[in-house]
Amino acid sequence: MRIARFVVDNDPMYGIVEGEDGNEVVTVIKGDPFFNGVETTTIKYPLADVRLVAPIIPRSKVIGVGRNFAEHARELGNEVPVHPLLFLKPNTSVVGPNEPIVMPEFSEEVSYEAELCVVIGRICKDVPEDRVDEVVFGYTCGNDLTARDVQKTDGQWARAKGFDTSAPLGPWIETELDPDDLTIQGRLNGELRQDGNTNQMVRSVRELVSIVSQAFTLLPGDVIMTGTPAGVGLLTEGDRYEVEIEGIGRLSNPVVRR
Amino acid sequence: MRIARFVVDNDPMYGIVEGEDGNEVVTVIKGDPFFNGVETTTIKYPLADVRLVAPIIPRSKVIGVGRNFAEHARELGNEVPVHPLLFLKPNTSVVGPNEPIVMPEFSEEVSYEAELCVVIGRICKDVPEDRVDEVVFGYTCGNDLTARDVQKTDGQWARAKGFDTSAPLGPWIETELDPDDLTIQGRLNGELRQDGNTNQMVRSVRELVSIVSQAFTLLPGDVIMTGTPAGVGLLTEGDRYEVEIEGIGRLSNPVVRR
Repeated sequence: MRIARFVVDNDPMYGIVEGEDGNEVVTVIKGDPFFNGVETTTIKYPLADVRLVAPIIPRSKVIGVGRNFAEHARELGNEVPVHPLLFLKPNTSVVGPNEPIVMPEFSEEVSYEAELCVVIGRICKDVPEDRVDEVVFGYTCGNDLTARDVQKTDGQWARAKGFDTSAPLGPWIETELDPDDLTIQGRLNGELRQDGNTNQMVRSVRELVSIVSQAFTLLPGDVIMTGTPAGVGLLTEGDRYEVEIEGIGRLSNPVVRR
Repeated sequence: MRIARFVVDNDPMYGIVEGEDGNEVVTVIKGDPFFNGVETTTIKYPLADVRLVAPIIPRSKVIGVGRNFAEHARELGNEVPVHPLLFLKPNTSVVGPNEPIVMPEFSEEVSYEAELCVVIGRICKDVPEDRVDEVVFGYTCGNDLTARDVQKTDGQWARAKGFDTSAPLGPWIETELDPDDLTIQGRLNGELRQDGNTNQMVRSVRELVSIVSQAFTLLPGDVIMTGTPAGVGLLTEGDRYEVEIEGIGRLSNPVVRR
């Protein structure tokens, strides 16, 4: 099931997206599926007539995982860490499909990072790997924008990975998906730049969720960005970056400077 | 004005704390003062009859500032950073007065850090230093608990500074306070360990709020922990650490292991 958050006139609503590519219909859900479950209404819109927004704005946190693809760690001259390298992005960094990535004034080197994102569905702590599926709401595409220059000079990554618009998510949450063997692709202005698979991860998605849940209590709507495959590079004003993940869909965002 | 959040029977409420030390009374406020302003009711409780909880659970983020006291930077063998060293703590790390600090299973070296905390009152971005007072709701005491062992091995500080209960806040928010010359003291089991003053900060409180607002959009209820003075040290099960800040009050928490 594909659960989207969208705007028709004013307030955001949730809905289920169904139908063939290019011809989808959204059926409105009552309230917030993270707390009320999925109860559909009779209201439907063509997907083309609604504006998708980020499928979730976490009430607590976005957790990132550094260097979870060996080839990507190597391309930046890094080792694979002994303990998964966790970092936090604030919920003010989240934007939705087609919303602009605004390059921050303090950086000249903003890089794209296509990533599979886990969306948590239940409050949990210390989840064993074989019970992870019980706490996962679903999966979406994400872009873990990173200011490479500031990442190097600051040491801690809060500014480099936490600036406003640094976490595009979408286009929707796919609730039925096995995360172990999915293609992750990233296209810069239509040109393939990242082409990985979740089967290349140093730690699998379920292993990561288990590990992250040992570090923090996870709340419904928390998002875990599971690391990017090789091929990262810098963005320039006017670019567009598209993240496509097998079984989910495409998240595309323009890049601007203000 | 001292604004506390507290529980009498079930749901948390906000109130204004007035009266002499040891004899305070809390007057209940209508709704949430971060969104509704401060409108008092006629309901009053003796402070001794209520249970204080964290005066704010941020809807977005807690931002920490590393090495903002030169003497503390030196005691851990660090330089004062060129750009303020910012890091994030999730809202799941926040607890209130007297609530236990639970040492995480993954650390053997948890340190206390007494800190003045700024509570943001208005959505803001790129705030000039001379307009910071307009966006500040008030000030509270905080303890920026840090797992020193994990801080060293992980590199990024998300786990070391973000574990559940790593951000005690309280006892209340003081809304009228000049932050430039305040004593910050920390006592371990009643013994003075930290004894600094905000006038020793590398960057003043208003400078920090301005700098942090350049990195992220700040939302009402966001908290900035402004760095700890010298004297940090490790905690053991059964300890109690008390943070006292001039003009605010005392925040005291027991330390447990589960």
